[in-house]
Amino acid sequence: MRIAVDAIGGDQGPAVVVPGAVDGARMFNVALCLVGPEAVIRHHLSSVDTAGVDVHVVDAPDAIEMDEHPAQAIRRKPRASIPVALREVQEGRANGVVSAGNSGAVMAAALLVLGRIAGIDRPAIGSFLPSVRSRTLVLDLGAVTDPKPHHLVQFALMGRVYAERILDLSNPTVGLLSNGEEPTKGNQFVQEVYPLLAGVDGLNFKGNVEGKDVPLGTVDIVVTDGFTGNVALKVAEGIATMMTDLLRSELTATLPRKLASLMLRPAFRTVRARLDYSEIGGAPLLGVDGTVVIAHGRSDVKAIMNAVGVARRSVEADLPGGIREAVAGPRGGKEVEESPVVSQEIAPDRRRGAV
Amino acid sequence: MRIAVDAIGGDQGPAVVVPGAVDGARMFNVALCLVGPEAVIRHHLSSVDTAGVDVHVVDAPDAIEMDEHPAQAIRRKPRASIPVALREVQEGRANGVVSAGNSGAVMAAALLVLGRIAGIDRPAIGSFLPSVRSRTLVLDLGAVTDPKPHHLVQFALMGRVYAERILDLSNPTVGLLSNGEEPTKGNQFVQEVYPLLAGVDGLNFKGNVEGKDVPLGTVDIVVTDGFTGNVALKVAEGIATMMTDLLRSELTATLPRKLASLMLRPAFRTVRARLDYSEIGGAPLLGVDGTVVIAHGRSDVKAIMNAVGVARRSVEADLPGGIREAVAGPRGGKEVEESPVVSQEIAPDRRRGAV
Repeated sequence: MRIAVDAIGGDQGPAVVVPGAVDGARMFNVALCLVGPEAVIRHHLSSVDTAGVDVHVVDAPDAIEMDEHPAQAIRRKPRASIPVALREVQEGRANGVVSAGNSGAVMAAALLVLGRIAGIDRPAIGSFLPSVRSRTLVLDLGAVTDPKPHHLVQFALMGRVYAERILDLSNPTVGLLSNGEEPTKGNQFVQEVYPLLAGVDGLNFKGNVEGKDVPLGTVDIVVTDGFTGNVALKVAEGIATMMTDLLRSELTATLPRKLASLMLRPAFRTVRARLDYSEIGGAPLLGVDGTVVIAHGRSDVKAIMNAVGVARRSVEADLPGGIREAVAGPRGGKEVEESPVVSQEIAPDRRRGAV
Repeated sequence: MRIAVDAIGGDQGPAVVVPGAVDGARMFNVALCLVGPEAVIRHHLSSVDTAGVDVHVVDAPDAIEMDEHPAQAIRRKPRASIPVALREVQEGRANGVVSAGNSGAVMAAALLVLGRIAGIDRPAIGSFLPSVRSRTLVLDLGAVTDPKPHHLVQFALMGRVYAERILDLSNPTVGLLSNGEEPTKGNQFVQEVYPLLAGVDGLNFKGNVEGKDVPLGTVDIVVTDGFTGNVALKVAEGIATMMTDLLRSELTATLPRKLASLMLRPAFRTVRARLDYSEIGGAPLLGVDGTVVIAHGRSDVKAIMNAVGVARRSVEADLPGGIREAVAGPRGGKEVEESPVVSQEIAPDRRRGAV
C-alpha cells in the first residue's frame, strides 16, 4: 500500500510534514509518495532518516494557499500538490492521500479528480472528538456549511460505515446535534432533519442530543451541519487547551506544587493524550470515491504520522466501498424500495459534476 | 432592592432554590420574594436560617414543566410561578426575577408580562464562558434558534451594553462566530450578518472568530444564533466536566498519586472555579423591559445564590435602560441617521405583541 502525502500543506509546511510522513510510513508499514516541489522535498528529506521506508517523490511545483478560493485555485493550478497527489490515487499509483492543506481545496480537488460516490450529494468530514466512553464520531466538521436536510441522512449512513469498519461497532447509535433532547427542540433545519433520520430503515437513531453529549459519548455518531460541527470541534479543542494551560500555570506556580506535580506526570500525560487532536491525526473525507484524509492545519509531526495511520486503516477498511453499499440500499441484498427515505430524498437534489 | 425568585424552577426544585435564594439575598444584601406554592415554600423555608434576610412569599399554585410548550403553558397557567414572579416586577413590588425553570417559558412570559424594549425584535440570553483572559460574553445562548441577520446586530448592541455596564469594559470588541476567520467564511446566514455588523457605526467589530476564540478570549463579545450558541455552551461545559472527571480518576488511581494530589488541591480548586458555571449563576435575558435572570436548569445552591447576585448587578446597572439608549441611536446625542443599519434593518421586521 502506498499513501500520497501533500508535502507542503499545513501551517508549518514540509519541515513538519516530511518527517511526520516518513515516521507514519515506518510506523504503519506503508510506502510513501511525497508530493510537492521536488527540490524542497529533497532538501527536507536529506535531514530525515528514511532507512527501511519506501519513499518516492512526485514533483508538483505549485502551491494552494490557505486563503485561496478552493474551486478556483484547483482549476487555476492543476500542478499544485493537492490535485497532483489525488491523481496519484486516481491513476492507481497510490491508495490514499493525506493533506494538511486548505481543506476546502482538498475537497474541491477530490470531487474533481476522484468524484463522488453515487448516492452521495456532498462529501462530509468525519472525525472523533474525545468522550468519557472512548470517542464520539462527529460529522460534518466543516465540509458542508449549508446542507439540505436529506444530506444529514447521507452523513448518518456514511458515519455508520465509518464506525462499523474503523471502530468495529455493530449497529452504532446515531444522534442529531440540537439545543435540547426533546424531538421538538432544534432550529428549523434540525426539525426538518429529525423525521428523515427517524424514517431511515435500520438506522439506530436515538433522536436529538445536546452539545454535552459529544464528550459524554451518549451516542456513537453525532450528525450535524458542517458549520455547527466546526464550531463544536473548535470549542472543544479550545476548552481542552485552555484547561491544560490553566492547570500548567497553577501547578507550576510554587516550588512545592512543582514537586508534587512531577509525581503526577504520568496521570497528566494520560489525560492529555485523551484530548490531543494529534493522537487522532486526521479525518477522512467521506463520500468521495477514494481515500482522502484531511489533517489539521496546525498538525505537528505526530499528527501527520497518525494521519498516515488513518489513511492506512481507511484503505484497508474500504470505506468508499462500504459507503457505496450503504447508500445503494439496506444491507443484506434487500430491495431498495424498503428504504424510502434514502432513495426518494437523495435523488431530486443530486447534482452532477458540481465542484 | 427586592429580587423575586421562582422557587420551584430547576431540576432540583425548591430544596435547592429556597436555600440558594436565601443565601443569595444575604450575600448580595437584597430582599427576597419567593414565588411558588406557598405551603411548599414555607416547608422548605422552615429548615433554612433566614435570620437577617427580608423574605416574603407570594403564592403561585401552578407549575410549568420543562417539557411544556412555553407560550401555551404561559397562557394556560397565569398563576404559575414564572408569570406570577414577573408580575411582581411589572407591578413594582420587585426589581428583578431569577428562574431556573423552563427557559422558553421564562422568555415567553417575560415578553407577555414585561414586553420588549423598543427597537429589539427578539430578546437574547447572554452569559459568560470561561476564557484564558477572563470571560467571553456569548449571545444568544438559546433564546432565538432561527434569528434573522439583523437580529445579530441587536445582539451585538445589547452585548456591548452588558459588557460595558457589568464588566466595566470601554468599547468592547465584538466577533461573529464562524467556521473560519476570513470574512468569506461562514454559512449563508453568517455571510449575511457580517456586512451588517461591519456597517454599524461605533461598534468595535473584529470580524469572524472561531470556536477556539471563545476560550481564548480573542474578543470580549461573541455573537451567534441561539442554536449554535447553545451547542457551543454545552460542548464547553461537557468538555470541562469530562476533563475534570478524567483528571479526578487518574489522580486518585494510586495511593502515591492521591497523596501528591492532596498537596495540589488549592491549584485544582482554582482551575475548577474558573470553569464552574455555578460561579456565574445565571444569564440575563437581554431585550425585555425588566431584569430577568435565567439560571441553569441543573443549578445547585451556589448557582442560585450567584444568580441572585447577577440579578442585583443587572438592576443596579440598569441594563434595560442602557439597551434602550443603545438601540435608539448612536451614543453622544448624534443623529439616528448616522446609524443606518440599526435604524433601517430593525424596523421592517418589528413584530408587535408576538410571544
